[in-house]
Amino acid sequence: MRPITQEKLDDLTKFMEKEAIDAILISDWENGRDVNMRYLTGHPMDATMVVLASGEICLVPWDLQLAEDHAKVDTILDFKEFPNRRTGGALHFIKENIKKAGPIIGVNQGIPYNVVLDLKENLSDVRIYGAPAAVSAKFTKLRSTKSPQEMDKLDAAGKIGNKTIKDIRKFAEEKEGTENDLSFLVMKKMKEYGAEDNSFPSLVAQTTRSHMIHCHPSAGNNFFAQEGLSLIDFGALLDGYCCDITIPFTFGKLTAEQEKIRDTTVKAYHAAIEAIDLGVPLWKLSKAATDVMDEAGYKMPHSLGHGLGLTVHDSPSVRPKPEDAAGLKDWSEYVVEEGMIFTIEPGVYIKGLGGQRLENDVMIRNGKVEVYTKSELIEIE
Amino acid sequence: MRPITQEKLDDLTKFMEKEAIDAILISDWENGRDVNMRYLTGHPMDATMVVLASGEICLVPWDLQLAEDHAKVDTILDFKEFPNRRTGGALHFIKENIKKAGPIIGVNQGIPYNVVLDLKENLSDVRIYGAPAAVSAKFTKLRSTKSPQEMDKLDAAGKIGNKTIKDIRKFAEEKEGTENDLSFLVMKKMKEYGAEDNSFPSLVAQTTRSHMIHCHPSAGNNFFAQEGLSLIDFGALLDGYCCDITIPFTFGKLTAEQEKIRDTTVKAYHAAIEAIDLGVPLWKLSKAATDVMDEAGYKMPHSLGHGLGLTVHDSPSVRPKPEDAAGLKDWSEYVVEEGMIFTIEPGVYIKGLGGQRLENDVMIRNGKVEVYTKSELIEIE
Repeated sequence: MRPITQEKLDDLTKFMEKEAIDAILISDWENGRDVNMRYLTGHPMDATMVVLASGEICLVPWDLQLAEDHAKVDTILDFKEFPNRRTGGALHFIKENIKKAGPIIGVNQGIPYNVVLDLKENLSDVRIYGAPAAVSAKFTKLRSTKSPQEMDKLDAAGKIGNKTIKDIRKFAEEKEGTENDLSFLVMKKMKEYGAEDNSFPSLVAQTTRSHMIHCHPSAGNNFFAQEGLSLIDFGALLDGYCCDITIPFTFGKLTAEQEKIRDTTVKAYHAAIEAIDLGVPLWKLSKAATDVMDEAGYKMPHSLGHGLGLTVHDSPSVRPKPEDAAGLKDWSEYVVEEGMIFTIEPGVYIKGLGGQRLENDVMIRNGKVEVYTKSELIEIE
Repeated sequence: MRPITQEKLDDLTKFMEKEAIDAILISDWENGRDVNMRYLTGHPMDATMVVLASGEICLVPWDLQLAEDHAKVDTILDFKEFPNRRTGGALHFIKENIKKAGPIIGVNQGIPYNVVLDLKENLSDVRIYGAPAAVSAKFTKLRSTKSPQEMDKLDAAGKIGNKTIKDIRKFAEEKEGTENDLSFLVMKKMKEYGAEDNSFPSLVAQTTRSHMIHCHPSAGNNFFAQEGLSLIDFGALLDGYCCDITIPFTFGKLTAEQEKIRDTTVKAYHAAIEAIDLGVPLWKLSKAATDVMDEAGYKMPHSLGHGLGLTVHDSPSVRPKPEDAAGLKDWSEYVVEEGMIFTIEPGVYIKGLGGQRLENDVMIRNGKVEVYTKSELIEIE
């Protein structure tokens, strides 16, 4: 399956035509990932690719066999046939297919610098399209709404997550085992339910570690059900599509300040969920949550949410509107629309007291707001 | 702990002085990793950092708390205080500390392009050091030999791997369970033995999938002990340091061609191991293995090995010497020397017949070659 639809590919090539971009080169390798390669081709990972303004796509994968099984493209080249393994095949394809002087090549803003240097060194009078941020913004926009096929995959990944919530609740209620035990259980159950893998290593933090946004290491040998505030952040991966859920727990008797952390998190969550409606700018969802935080005297150290798709941090981002000129320069306002899928995950974290985060996944389908994962605060005496 | 030693940091700053580089900027974020950030600071991940020619280091992490616990640096800045979150703090630090006109900033060749654009936009008359490949090569060289502290960590990670080999053998001998079951067992046992995590998701491939170099998905619900050629590629992570082991299996009766795949792999492995000696160029180890392959009529579709350290594909690379001018341009010859740690992992893969790879980790310590992991072919009737 190639995730991008023909309609969206046409949208991309129209953008290229308008900006006089002859080809876009995308690089996806260890240490420098770009999910747009997978999005455009269906090939899972480790490749350089070129899309021409005609819509024709060439892929130069590390694993030819994998590409033959997964990629829906016009040309596959063997990287071993070119001296420069990462970019040689792609540069060759561009040279073969763009004969005009001074071709304009578009790149995403995060592309490794050496790929840009390779382009400049190997293509005579090549010009790099002057606004890589605009190329990235175009892909961000394309990926901000999902096709029905993509929604089905995300929905199915969410269902695996929901089943697993029940196992997690049982584990917590039994008050046995460590963070690592819970992490294993989650992986085992999700695979049983059909997941390809975790969408990321489960973050399991009992009360002494839950003040960390992303606890490091992701799980340890600490007893999980210790008195205080805990959480687990986990998700299933299904055919490359990600689910992302956080369950906040309380165990035993809390201090007044811990109760406030718990209550503020839950209140902020509901304020954000209630704010979701077609046409509402995403920054307003963020504001609904942070207003609750502000009132309680807390500052949220991360965004309210993010899109879900072929990456766990996909498009669109659900975050505050920048207040300064520098921040506004690259700002695009996104509003809630059909096909959007994103997390809502407010959290409060205080070292010494612990943290709470409540996260569910939201899908806008058939004009309706569906909170399709089912996490909620789990309170255990 | 800061992995880099003072001696190596001095080596780096001498290089900067010689090349008139005023500061090196390193960016390590999701989608664009650069382990040199962790190597220079001890901070695990998600930060931008600057090292001045004086050796002074500034870190701008995503998670301040994590940095306070892990980073050994001179200055920590809060990214939230700057409009551009990824580079704002680092640019500020450069501006504050380098007052001369036309400062020269070094970057690694794989740095995301937008960081280079940010530098050019925000620092008046900045010059990017003209040979990013030379900066990367310097780090590659520094990381190609490990300090005694690093060797101890790698050795300990290897010991966890070795214990796990016994569990894997038992699992295979019992001829029960799927690829996923084996993958879980490995993770569970490694954590029991003290690992922080897998160093990468275990690649578990029974005979219908073992022709893939890196099987995708990493493990599935296929019965593992099926007649034919199988393998598991796995490793423990300990305080950020990686172990990497592949065990080839045969189950039941093989065809003559399958026997040849098995025997060639093992023979190529021993040829490479026997070639290791102080002062020997690494490409000669590669040649020892590929000569065996060539004789049997096989072509190895990957390198013979790679360094191990804070990444599972660390410096140095054990691969053939390039034969063409383009490949030789960026080629540096590495010879076996004290402190080097690398894998030896020849493999043969034929679709329809399966694949075999035998991989162990080698350390050059006190002038001796130590094959410190203990994988070997496991043959089960």
